[in-house]
Amino acid sequence: MSKKEHILIIGAGLCGSLLALRLAQRGYHVSLVEKRPDLRKVDQVAGRSINLALSDRGLQALALAGVDNQAKELCIPMRGRMIHQESGEVFLRPYSGRDDEHINSISRPGLNMMLLNALDDYPQVKVYYNHICENVDLEMGKAWFTHNETGELRSFTGDVLIGTDGAGSAVRRSMYEHKKFLFSFSQQWLTHGYKELEIPPGPNGEFLIDANSLHIWPRGADMLIALPNLDGSFTVTLFAPWRDSDYGFDNLDSKEKVQQYFEKEFPDTLHLIPDLTDQFFTNPTSPLGTIKCSPWSSYGKTLLMGDAAHAIVPFYGQGMNASFEDVLILDQVLDQTAEDWNLVLKTYEKARKVNTDAIADLAVDNFYEMKEHTASPLFQAKRKLEVRLEQEFPEAYFSKYSLVTFHEDLPYSEAMRRGRAQDKAILNLLDDGKIDPDGSLEEILEVIVKQTNDILEDDALLKNL
Amino acid sequence: MSKKEHILIIGAGLCGSLLALRLAQRGYHVSLVEKRPDLRKVDQVAGRSINLALSDRGLQALALAGVDNQAKELCIPMRGRMIHQESGEVFLRPYSGRDDEHINSISRPGLNMMLLNALDDYPQVKVYYNHICENVDLEMGKAWFTHNETGELRSFTGDVLIGTDGAGSAVRRSMYEHKKFLFSFSQQWLTHGYKELEIPPGPNGEFLIDANSLHIWPRGADMLIALPNLDGSFTVTLFAPWRDSDYGFDNLDSKEKVQQYFEKEFPDTLHLIPDLTDQFFTNPTSPLGTIKCSPWSSYGKTLLMGDAAHAIVPFYGQGMNASFEDVLILDQVLDQTAEDWNLVLKTYEKARKVNTDAIADLAVDNFYEMKEHTASPLFQAKRKLEVRLEQEFPEAYFSKYSLVTFHEDLPYSEAMRRGRAQDKAILNLLDDGKIDPDGSLEEILEVIVKQTNDILEDDALLKNL
Repeated sequence: MSKKEHILIIGAGLCGSLLALRLAQRGYHVSLVEKRPDLRKVDQVAGRSINLALSDRGLQALALAGVDNQAKELCIPMRGRMIHQESGEVFLRPYSGRDDEHINSISRPGLNMMLLNALDDYPQVKVYYNHICENVDLEMGKAWFTHNETGELRSFTGDVLIGTDGAGSAVRRSMYEHKKFLFSFSQQWLTHGYKELEIPPGPNGEFLIDANSLHIWPRGADMLIALPNLDGSFTVTLFAPWRDSDYGFDNLDSKEKVQQYFEKEFPDTLHLIPDLTDQFFTNPTSPLGTIKCSPWSSYGKTLLMGDAAHAIVPFYGQGMNASFEDVLILDQVLDQTAEDWNLVLKTYEKARKVNTDAIADLAVDNFYEMKEHTASPLFQAKRKLEVRLEQEFPEAYFSKYSLVTFHEDLPYSEAMRRGRAQDKAILNLLDDGKIDPDGSLEEILEVIVKQTNDILEDDALLKNL
Repeated sequence: MSKKEHILIIGAGLCGSLLALRLAQRGYHVSLVEKRPDLRKVDQVAGRSINLALSDRGLQALALAGVDNQAKELCIPMRGRMIHQESGEVFLRPYSGRDDEHINSISRPGLNMMLLNALDDYPQVKVYYNHICENVDLEMGKAWFTHNETGELRSFTGDVLIGTDGAGSAVRRSMYEHKKFLFSFSQQWLTHGYKELEIPPGPNGEFLIDANSLHIWPRGADMLIALPNLDGSFTVTLFAPWRDSDYGFDNLDSKEKVQQYFEKEFPDTLHLIPDLTDQFFTNPTSPLGTIKCSPWSSYGKTLLMGDAAHAIVPFYGQGMNASFEDVLILDQVLDQTAEDWNLVLKTYEKARKVNTDAIADLAVDNFYEMKEHTASPLFQAKRKLEVRLEQEFPEAYFSKYSLVTFHEDLPYSEAMRRGRAQDKAILNLLDDGKIDPDGSLEEILEVIVKQTNDILEDDALLKNL
């Protein structure tokens, strides 16, 4: 057996850590270089325990590396969206009609620390913290770093260099600036930004609102969401327009205005966030963007994975899951190609990019769905019907959300194709009065399936001409 | 009346020259700064007289500035696509079923010189050649230039600065690198590149193939086209994959291979291009890209127009037309806003971007249509039927191509929306045997209109939810 390549991974976030773990398990030597300090050795800033949604695709990838059960210990199951209406009415809209399907709230630093701990068992993985990537030689697989504290300059070279350095990737920037090959690139910003706030635990560490839901306050132009943390707190995120709105971030420039805004739009949160206006002006406001690019690899030497290759907006709860799934797909491609890396890099992008493009587009769609459509009667009728269909026909009916979230055997692109057609079918059938929600569920399912297939056939003709 | 703003325009290509002309006619003082020498004072390289397709949208904008008739003197009408099949069969597929609808082949430098000549009549326009834009202060409306020959550094400041400096725009680069506002940006390259060749005139200056057509040799993976020039020559463009193909540009690396390639794919062109292999290795191979970005303006001071804001691939023959139409739309916005430039810049983008996005997408669609679909029997049946419908119902039926090309009153986005729905309707009706091409044209039209409207309604529900 030939000697295995030395893999240089830049970025020890969620994707890079899991990738290093899996490659070590396959017998590779790995250098994992991270710009920040070791998470486990610095204090986590209180109220900054950003949580994420972990679901089946992510868990499947964690299972491949044997760390799914450790991750589950950090999880709080969320069974549906708890909708907080303007009227004060609150109701749960389940994510699925099947009892065993839910998503999970998990702490990003907690999960990352678990992965770094797992790496400790693999002596062939060397992790270097505090190294900021300055420049990459794409042909050589070589990268230069400045030490965060000492300022020392140092280089690492891999037989293969993989950039898992996130949405602001230095490796991707090197590809963009390289100019020796055609690099397609897209950064698209939403008109909205976001700000994180915190609902602290109750006096006895208890959850002050239901722990097993993703809470949403949809208000059309803006939206508040809250996900539970293990300590009884919730991380709240406000999504609002940057400008051109009465309550755009540019207008929320005084404590009075913020207080007034929450009183009007989210009054039931006021007693939950006692220091609202302090938090509002302490915490940063951040942009929401989608990044796509191609090619992901260059010279058979360098590869982008995770957010570095495909940063998406958070509205499908799939960003981390997609990045973990990257590791799973790369692992499959390594099997298929007998670990011929030149072939691996191209085969991986060919298999994967259509799917990360799909989840990027679905996530933008869901931005509009969450903040606007959830208030539309037609959309609500559709969701109610879909939950009943999933309950009645758990093996036969899957909503778009279920296809994306709970159907990890189905690639994102297929979930998008089928899910969009099905949504279009149901909405138009309901709107045209062609299905009676009070009629036979079996007949309704039959009509939906037929209409969905008709739509898919009509679309396919154009694509396959 | 208040003093009019001084407008600094960077780039004296087609868009910048027409813009300067129109703004001068509105009474503005204009500084027009161009990196190249005055076209009229340098020899045009033989065989480099790149021609473009000028059609109704472009002509409408030229008419606004009173130079449409001068442009028409430079035009060669093209009434359809002359398809050269692999079998050697040649047939004309008209662009429209209406006799008066055609597009025009026109020389880019010829048209540009005509516009520069027109500017000579306006003393309030100062044109500066050989000034390369190095940097732009977006807030100040100030730009720095190096003189191409003397190396001298010089700055210009406008009350408003407009970048019409093409696909590689220095003004746009300043926005991208500015980082003080969120700049959405996308550059997408096709898998194909292009190379220009020339069919010289016959011995007596005559055209060697039909002068009044756009000639196409569609071959699936690759394609050759030819447009006539006034001197009897044709400018030929080869579109081929960069790589991963038997006849990719990377494989066409010897005169023997090029000769063999043309013998196999385009044998009827060999006697027309006598010095084929010399031309092939003398002329450059260039990429084909789409550029979109937003916002087009910053600080109420700077604006991108033409290719600088929206570079598109050439497959709809609309690049120049879209850039000229930009000037027409800006002119309308100046009227609507009483020339309040802060308002002008935002109103213009709001009105215009959805339409330049649409023509960019349509142009990519047409890349596939021209090289692949033209060989599909279903597609050919559709085109034949559409020409008959346009002949029979010249006021009632317009193909997508006609909506885009000959319906200058309809914005590109509307042409796309209606045209795509209509294409989908016809292709599926034909494929499902629901229209008999030999049946009554009146009934066929009725079925198509109904099916198209159904598609539009179903799509609208999703968009307006």
